[in-house]
Amino acid sequence: MASAVTCSAAELLPHLGSSANATAAAEFICGRFSAVSEYLTQTTYAVDTTYLLFSAYLVFAMQLGFAMLCAGSVRAKNTMNIMLTNVLDAAAGGLSYYLFGFAFAFGAPSNGFIGKHFFGLKEFPSQAFDYSYFLYQWAFAIAAAGITSGSIAERTQFVAYLIYSSFLTGFVYPIVSHWFWSGDGWASASKTDGNLLFGSGVIDFAGSGVVHMVGGIAGLWGAFIEGPRIGRFDRSGRSVALRGHSSSLVVLGTFLLWFGWYGFNPGSFLTILKSYDHTTRGSYYGQWSAIGRTAVTTTLAGCTAALTTLFSKRLLVGHWNVIDVCNGLLGGFAAITSGCAVVEPWAAIVCGFIAAWVLIGFNALAAKLKYDDPLEAAQLHGGCGSWGIIFTGLFAKKEYVNEVYPGFPNRPYGLFMGGGGKLLGAQIIQVVVIIGWVSVTMGPLFYLLHKFKLLRISRDDETAGMDLTRHGGFAYIYHDEDEGSSMPGFKMTRVEPTNTPTPDHHHHNVVV
Amino acid sequence: MASAVTCSAAELLPHLGSSANATAAAEFICGRFSAVSEYLTQTTYAVDTTYLLFSAYLVFAMQLGFAMLCAGSVRAKNTMNIMLTNVLDAAAGGLSYYLFGFAFAFGAPSNGFIGKHFFGLKEFPSQAFDYSYFLYQWAFAIAAAGITSGSIAERTQFVAYLIYSSFLTGFVYPIVSHWFWSGDGWASASKTDGNLLFGSGVIDFAGSGVVHMVGGIAGLWGAFIEGPRIGRFDRSGRSVALRGHSSSLVVLGTFLLWFGWYGFNPGSFLTILKSYDHTTRGSYYGQWSAIGRTAVTTTLAGCTAALTTLFSKRLLVGHWNVIDVCNGLLGGFAAITSGCAVVEPWAAIVCGFIAAWVLIGFNALAAKLKYDDPLEAAQLHGGCGSWGIIFTGLFAKKEYVNEVYPGFPNRPYGLFMGGGGKLLGAQIIQVVVIIGWVSVTMGPLFYLLHKFKLLRISRDDETAGMDLTRHGGFAYIYHDEDEGSSMPGFKMTRVEPTNTPTPDHHHHNVVV
Amino acid sequence: MASAVTCSAAELLPHLGSSANATAAAEFICGRFSAVSEYLTQTTYAVDTTYLLFSAYLVFAMQLGFAMLCAGSVRAKNTMNIMLTNVLDAAAGGLSYYLFGFAFAFGAPSNGFIGKHFFGLKEFPSQAFDYSYFLYQWAFAIAAAGITSGSIAERTQFVAYLIYSSFLTGFVYPIVSHWFWSGDGWASASKTDGNLLFGSGVIDFAGSGVVHMVGGIAGLWGAFIEGPRIGRFDRSGRSVALRGHSSSLVVLGTFLLWFGWYGFNPGSFLTILKSYDHTTRGSYYGQWSAIGRTAVTTTLAGCTAALTTLFSKRLLVGHWNVIDVCNGLLGGFAAITSGCAVVEPWAAIVCGFIAAWVLIGFNALAAKLKYDDPLEAAQLHGGCGSWGIIFTGLFAKKEYVNEVYPGFPNRPYGLFMGGGGKLLGAQIIQVVVIIGWVSVTMGPLFYLLHKFKLLRISRDDETAGMDLTRHGGFAYIYHDEDEGSSMPGFKMTRVEPTNTPTPDHHHHNVVV
Repeated sequence: MASAVTCSAAELLPHLGSSANATAAAEFICGRFSAVSEYLTQTTYAVDTTYLLFSAYLVFAMQLGFAMLCAGSVRAKNTMNIMLTNVLDAAAGGLSYYLFGFAFAFGAPSNGFIGKHFFGLKEFPSQAFDYSYFLYQWAFAIAAAGITSGSIAERTQFVAYLIYSSFLTGFVYPIVSHWFWSGDGWASASKTDGNLLFGSGVIDFAGSGVVHMVGGIAGLWGAFIEGPRIGRFDRSGRSVALRGHSSSLVVLGTFLLWFGWYGFNPGSFLTILKSYDHTTRGSYYGQWSAIGRTAVTTTLAGCTAALTTLFSKRLLVGHWNVIDVCNGLLGGFAAITSGCAVVEPWAAIVCGFIAAWVLIGFNALAAKLKYDDPLEAAQLHGGCGSWGIIFTGLFAKKEYVNEVYPGFPNRPYGLFMGGGGKLLGAQIIQVVVIIGWVSVTMGPLFYLLHKFKLLRISRDDETAGMDLTRHGGFAYIYHDEDEGSSMPGFKMTRVEPTNTPTPDHHHHNVVV
Repeated sequence: MASAVTCSAAELLPHLGSSANATAAAEFICGRFSAVSEYLTQTTYAVDTTYLLFSAYLVFAMQLGFAMLCAGSVRAKNTMNIMLTNVLDAAAGGLSYYLFGFAFAFGAPSNGFIGKHFFGLKEFPSQAFDYSYFLYQWAFAIAAAGITSGSIAERTQFVAYLIYSSFLTGFVYPIVSHWFWSGDGWASASKTDGNLLFGSGVIDFAGSGVVHMVGGIAGLWGAFIEGPRIGRFDRSGRSVALRGHSSSLVVLGTFLLWFGWYGFNPGSFLTILKSYDHTTRGSYYGQWSAIGRTAVTTTLAGCTAALTTLFSKRLLVGHWNVIDVCNGLLGGFAAITSGCAVVEPWAAIVCGFIAAWVLIGFNALAAKLKYDDPLEAAQLHGGCGSWGIIFTGLFAKKEYVNEVYPGFPNRPYGLFMGGGGKLLGAQIIQVVVIIGWVSVTMGPLFYLLHKFKLLRISRDDETAGMDLTRHGGFAYIYHDEDEGSSMPGFKMTRVEPTNTPTPDHHHHNVVV
Repeated sequence: MASAVTCSAAELLPHLGSSANATAAAEFICGRFSAVSEYLTQTTYAVDTTYLLFSAYLVFAMQLGFAMLCAGSVRAKNTMNIMLTNVLDAAAGGLSYYLFGFAFAFGAPSNGFIGKHFFGLKEFPSQAFDYSYFLYQWAFAIAAAGITSGSIAERTQFVAYLIYSSFLTGFVYPIVSHWFWSGDGWASASKTDGNLLFGSGVIDFAGSGVVHMVGGIAGLWGAFIEGPRIGRFDRSGRSVALRGHSSSLVVLGTFLLWFGWYGFNPGSFLTILKSYDHTTRGSYYGQWSAIGRTAVTTTLAGCTAALTTLFSKRLLVGHWNVIDVCNGLLGGFAAITSGCAVVEPWAAIVCGFIAAWVLIGFNALAAKLKYDDPLEAAQLHGGCGSWGIIFTGLFAKKEYVNEVYPGFPNRPYGLFMGGGGKLLGAQIIQVVVIIGWVSVTMGPLFYLLHKFKLLRISRDDETAGMDLTRHGGFAYIYHDEDEGSSMPGFKMTRVEPTNTPTPDHHHHNVVV
């Protein structure tokens, strides 16, 4: 963070001669250099904070994207319910991450398992952490819970939501982020004590595992334990699509997530004013280039996954489906999130291409197993997220790994890039450990909620929709008369007398 | 704005000796330092302008947020009307703020009441003001009128809207911002002549008063003078909810406002590359930290208010209401906007908690008084805004006040923080003065419009909706047949003959 | 990009004396200056990249804006179709621009017609181009295809879309951008060989021609060749409005485009940390000021066009139309995009005022010629874009032209500003050349698609809507019963028995 310029008058003095004048001259000159250096340091803080804050705002915008995606993907009768969960992720997450989540995740010095400083942002800011870093990490924390809410949408009691969401954002997620992202974490790729897992540590740059798998696996358990929505599989066991109520909201949400992902992935560098070694390239090359490259790999992975999905689905299903393309796109993003900073653009295309098929495969498997996930969240964030972690172990490039995770000259990198299998081994450990940790924490929680009848809503409520039964009304009123309705799912509308035919139409007028 | 590095050859010369060479050496060295200094100054302008411009863009995005919030909060039949007012706030505000609004607000040198330079951006840019500053202030100016349009929604003539909006954005608002934000303003907390009100001046950092109260009080008068919407209170005087037509738009708008508030509050620092005194903290601490802290206080106040509203309303009304939570959230933001830069994060939680209750209280009062405000704008922006101003007088922290408003070493700060009652006194003055000024300007204006029959639409138009009667049609056409309708509020749809039962459904088919 | 500070020890040495000490002193001092200089250079890269990346993200957000604008402007039955084309513009554009589009546009050294380096981002990054620049240009490239999709909406086969979109984004557009924006382009205003067209080159700063006209003229040919939508003109030839299905989406899209335009126009400076000549102004004035001014001119042109449209349409049509105001606003933006960086704010008002009338005029002409463009895209982007190019030739200011396009001291500028007719001549050449190039490439393409029956959908598909026939279903399901429908365009809903009157309403209940 500090500028590289240091000037010591004691060092300069002998060069200027030994008179009294020389002392003053050395002090004069070095005083100026110190002032310059100080100003450069301040400039660095200002530039990096600007970069981090606006990245945080973009990540926050993903919460809006997720709210719109979720809303559009559920039936109209549960719109307010799912949007409320998204608003609450952000709101409850704000308080819990302030009080203890951040401390669990990044409180240093600590052990490899959990952090233990900075509760309620005590001792903030410090040389190590500024408020902007907290804000950025908060925006990440609330994303995980949002993913889970998609899996269990349309059939979960609101109180269950409040409980699992607090537990996930306040405890389960922060601990995972501690393991892989804090300097003390046992699996961190830049562990401060230098003792890297397999001599490598896990490279999960922006969180295919830490965020996406955590949210997806949690959702998997929730959705598995409470079972599919009524009508999702017919009596003969065939899958029946329960289509979401608004494609416009789905596309809006997808594009907003895309927009926000530029904060999520390139923003994870945290700073932009940092030089890299210039022996191979000119001084034009630095962290700013790596950040731009990360934006490009992110873009290409998503684009490729979207196109792959478009044509695959056209062949498999027979039509051009915008909802599937949106999900494919997001699957590509979830996958590249792990390795975005350390792979070449062409590798990102490979990543996205396979991510699309991973999603198609997991969706087919889910239908076979009668697993119902209204947002495909477990398949998408869990499945494509897992693939992304493995992908990094295969395609991480030596040069980029050393620039982004400096200080360990001979560290392993991607298997296919000639870097051996150690990074891949660490990546596999991450997949296994996240599945395990989330399963032993969230699995029992959802099971307990289920046992105590706190998880699933009643059959009647599910049929009528939660908006009417729990949230005060239907989400939309397009015509005045809708207001008059008091029966769940029934709308009263005025009708012209049926014995008054309308000759010019040869059918009856219905006033809607 | 200028870098701290100065190097005078005349000063360096004696240190280097008195030969001719020494002169050249001193000039050589100092020439380099001057070049460095010049470059640092330019860097500062570039960094600060980047910060300010992107903050301005975020504040502009609030206009979109407000349009969506308003649209979703009114009935479908008035959607185009309210959205048009939001578009026009921005458009008409752009011209009027360019022509004279900015001049009234910031035209210096001037008196304490009104500015008088820079009409049409004459003499722009200058050492004091660059174009980015104008853009930022314009984005603020248009927010105030948007607040007011919410209060008088669904029953106001479009021509009345054009008149009050121009008057508010072009005259009433700029003058208030002059008083509290310009260096010449009589109540400014950083008055250039050093003569602060109560030795303190008013701390309304991002405008709980200047923006939110101004918009809210103006709306209060408009809504009071034209009275409630038809059907808002039944014959026995009971309040009847006239629910908005789209919860999705409400949540979309709320999240966009949240997103934009990061430009509104942290952006109000205007610059980010500015050092603070380092005696108590290291050089890592500067305006960039205060900006991050402001983003955190903003977030926490909103989050707390949202959660408080959620549980309060659950207890009071019996369901989990996403619309109420959105309004509570915005109330928390409106409140923290005044003190966001000068309070601790924990205090922001107090601010948000009380803001939620302030909104609940004012809403109850409004129902009692049969005051109808479709967006709760007067209650939210006026009520919570007022609370926020008082809150600052109670919780402003000494260290932060001196960093953000430097140059007055012994200035008062928050009463509860040991800073005495002078700041609180100034804050109370602000509340009173804004209520007074807006009342004596906007009150008579709305009254005159009312007298000249220019304020409220006809009963028939109100029942049918303004979109059909004044804006060319209904805002939504979900089915082709809707197009055929020509009767306001009535939609013709084809119906299968009623004497042709559909056996498989045991009910009739209606083609909608 | 490099800082201005250079320090040569050999140069400093003679000034310090000729002893051995002096050599060390000179090396010591100049070593520090070199370190400072290096750090300043890195700072510049970091600041400029931050500026460019966030601008790119804003331009990307325009794709979302365009998706929402298009969705809202078409009938509900074609919503998914048009949104899918918008998603695909971005996705397919990502791959094709990576593989060859960028190379055609900016691959240097090359000839004046087409670039030929950097295929697949080979040799990236370099002194000349970093990844952020690629991302920014990609976001521009996908905008052009989006414009065209608006013109041919609601009646075009999806396969035709895939073909023309690839051809436009991958070939037609990159070549136009090469001509006007690359240093090798034959009409570039900052041609590296100094041989400017008419001694001036074309000033199309952010692409009124390169982006908007290209998209608009392509759309013109597509819409002309396939003809109007069914029902767009009645038997007597009168124009029948086929209104879009959601005003909320139109306003949402318009505001998002406005938001994104701040990345499009001010962002086109590419860098922000660049000083200008200080002889007339202080050091506070630099590229950051020009960028702010560009944001202001952009804003004012759009605002003026919106207001002009509002009042003109009120006079011409009789109501206050928010859709027309949105289109007028966008027409103002499309027009100012060419000259935004080189004109005064007051001139931007002139630009916007005329742009509104240009749009009104072209729309009247389109109706007369029975040309059907659901988004008015050819009229708006083609028509207003052309006007903007001419406007620049009239109003470009000497000082600004020389700052933004430096290195040619006596270059021509705007005719009305005393700069002669050469710039205007070059601008006219641009209009003609773009019309010609797009016509000879896209015209035959659309004609071939038409000949091979690949362009227009069948009459039945058009009546039923493409969402049901090609994209798997209707975009919206507001009520459960909608799901049951399998007939295109027909919705089955339960109806209470018609012989069971509901006494309290005196009309029949219809369950919708």
